Amino acid sequence: MKDALKVMREKKPLVHHITNWVTIYDCANMTRTFGALPVMAHAVEECADMTKISSALVLNIGTLTSELIDAMIISATAANEKKIPVVLDIVGVGATTFRDDMAAKILDSVHVDIIKGNYSEIAKMAGKNAETKGVEATSINDDAGQIAKEMARSRSCTVVMTGKNDIISDGKRIFIVKNGHEDMGSIVGTGCMAASIIGSFAALNNDYCDAAIDALCSFGIAGELAAERSNGSGSFKMHLYDEVSRLSDEKVKNMMNVEKY
Amino acid sequence: MKDALKVMREKKPLVHHITNWVTIYDCANMTRTFGALPVMAHAVEECADMTKISSALVLNIGTLTSELIDAMIISATAANEKKIPVVLDIVGVGATTFRDDMAAKILDSVHVDIIKGNYSEIAKMAGKNAETKGVEATSINDDAGQIAKEMARSRSCTVVMTGKNDIISDGKRIFIVKNGHEDMGSIVGTGCMAASIIGSFAALNNDYCDAAIDALCSFGIAGELAAERSNGSGSFKMHLYDEVSRLSDEKVKNMMNVEKY
Amino acid sequence: MKDALKVMREKKPLVHHITNWVTIYDCANMTRTFGALPVMAHAVEECADMTKISSALVLNIGTLTSELIDAMIISATAANEKKIPVVLDIVGVGATTFRDDMAAKILDSVHVDIIKGNYSEIAKMAGKNAETKGVEATSINDDAGQIAKEMARSRSCTVVMTGKNDIISDGKRIFIVKNGHEDMGSIVGTGCMAASIIGSFAALNNDYCDAAIDALCSFGIAGELAAERSNGSGSFKMHLYDEVSRLSDEKVKNMMNVEKY
Repeated sequence: MKDALKVMREKKPLVHHITNWVTIYDCANMTRTFGALPVMAHAVEECADMTKISSALVLNIGTLTSELIDAMIISATAANEKKIPVVLDIVGVGATTFRDDMAAKILDSVHVDIIKGNYSEIAKMAGKNAETKGVEATSINDDAGQIAKEMARSRSCTVVMTGKNDIISDGKRIFIVKNGHEDMGSIVGTGCMAASIIGSFAALNNDYCDAAIDALCSFGIAGELAAERSNGSGSFKMHLYDEVSRLSDEKVKNMMNVEKY
Repeated sequence: MKDALKVMREKKPLVHHITNWVTIYDCANMTRTFGALPVMAHAVEECADMTKISSALVLNIGTLTSELIDAMIISATAANEKKIPVVLDIVGVGATTFRDDMAAKILDSVHVDIIKGNYSEIAKMAGKNAETKGVEATSINDDAGQIAKEMARSRSCTVVMTGKNDIISDGKRIFIVKNGHEDMGSIVGTGCMAASIIGSFAALNNDYCDAAIDALCSFGIAGELAAERSNGSGSFKMHLYDEVSRLSDEKVKNMMNVEKY
Repeated sequence: MKDALKVMREKKPLVHHITNWVTIYDCANMTRTFGALPVMAHAVEECADMTKISSALVLNIGTLTSELIDAMIISATAANEKKIPVVLDIVGVGATTFRDDMAAKILDSVHVDIIKGNYSEIAKMAGKNAETKGVEATSINDDAGQIAKEMARSRSCTVVMTGKNDIISDGKRIFIVKNGHEDMGSIVGTGCMAASIIGSFAALNNDYCDAAIDALCSFGIAGELAAERSNGSGSFKMHLYDEVSRLSDEKVKNMMNVEKY
């Protein structure tokens, strides 16, 4: 979307998260730094109401429990009714059967507009063989684009597969985002933050493929700029936030590196 | 209180928190940086015991559940018996009915010594019309001081209403704290940290109005100094902690900007 | 272990945590910065499966609940079967009866390979008189080494007692790690991070005494280097991460300060 960052900072969309306890602060703080307003609420008594006043819903199963999955389904049902985008980050799918089952339960119970995962998570979800090591991807294959496209088509959604390069497909098109820096993988939470950023852009742009591209290019560019000034994981994280604070649509336009496959 | 920071660093009061999962680390770490000792414990089996060895109790409903509210009421009852201050941050009141109900349940079940919220949260709690957008305030009116004063009087407590300027009332007096910097609103968690800091000062000062003034002036001054050296939200947060580490009573005295209304 | 850091960065052991909600991010992020892969999963339905694919299990009772203790026992049982090391950080033992009881319940239900705590926590666990203030140690005695050694012998484990100097005993030997800096105590979470680091080294070294020495020397050295460049608690934390990122086995070997008692 043209001037997507400017629009975000003006409209400040409310982005409701039901996420994990490890990166919950960074999901909120990165959403805020991009210009949107994060809200985190997981009580089953209020989560639908919170979704109803929001412009996007971001779900992340990083530290899932049965109760949290219930809350996610309640909120996603409200989001479907309100026709606001639902982003699901399938963190750790492939690591345990429970995680696989719960991700499937969400996908079978509600419509998810954007499914996000790394290669092994998405491949596992698609029924392919893939090696997982905890919540980290360990391998990526040439067929990544096809797997993303097939899942996007079969589930009528947008699929975002993160990795060295990020792959985005809406079932028809496949895009490859080449922005980003390996230092982003050296700190915990950049994957979760990416889902929050995608949700924030999708809150204001019905073309979710486009929203995901804007999100990942912007975040990746901030990562590239931060890496130039970093001396390790601590200063990298600080500069990552600083660079997001100082990002402009012009800078993103000049530096974005995305290809149609 | 004279030399409040010096006293804090010497006496190191234990400040028990039952707070939200988003900013829990920063609540603890900011409490520690001010010189107090934070402890977080929410299990119903131990929360009263933890309150009994503490010098203040800070409650925050940011990511409330029914179970967490139960724990808050158990701990606040213990705090009331021990006559140590209870601070309640009514995060997000106005956003959902559940949140409004749970905040009211706490206030009806125990005595809260200091109620903290932004304008829309306090106004909603007082039965006034106010617009809320998630957990962020969107408007502030000229009647803010009166609303704070009336609530303080009717509930026999101190009310802290945060915003561009912070309003503090004990039901008789109204103070306006003008310290602080807009960058503090650009990161998630400064509101929650403020409640922790107020609790830390109130642990050592029976005049809760005075304690809240000391807390908000000190924190605001650190924010002003941090903003001078900041390049975005990442470095702002780092400098905010550094400036709190280096705060002295003399520096606070020289820079504090508080007016009686 | 010779070249322990190099081995860690090559083998990237998966370290499963069931930990507290305050420092969970820093437990994960510090594990990652040392070169291991953290995973956090506490649902009783999956925690054993996650342990089974991991190389170490780190438990921390900082914000315990009954449910979390159940998950810890389930995971530790799986770890015992798989013969991977279990680290237990007995945060806050001595502060409440519930905490004492739950720590004892874990130790009576499963085998813990490395028990970690500060002086007052370990002393309390050993049945000695010790003063606790929340989750912070307030005193240390000359008998610390003997208490650690006795507990290590009676429980057939390694005991790590943290403080100004850290004491490590496997029931036969007693080591004192003198690396570290007082600034490490000025931020919340370094104790929890230490347990994660110990777990990461123990994942690759069957001599848990040696693994704990490597962990605490490395972390302490990073702390010493960070303190030289710090201007307060914010920059100290950033530099601490940066220094860990830049740590090498050679640097550790040159700076390590450990004595046999």
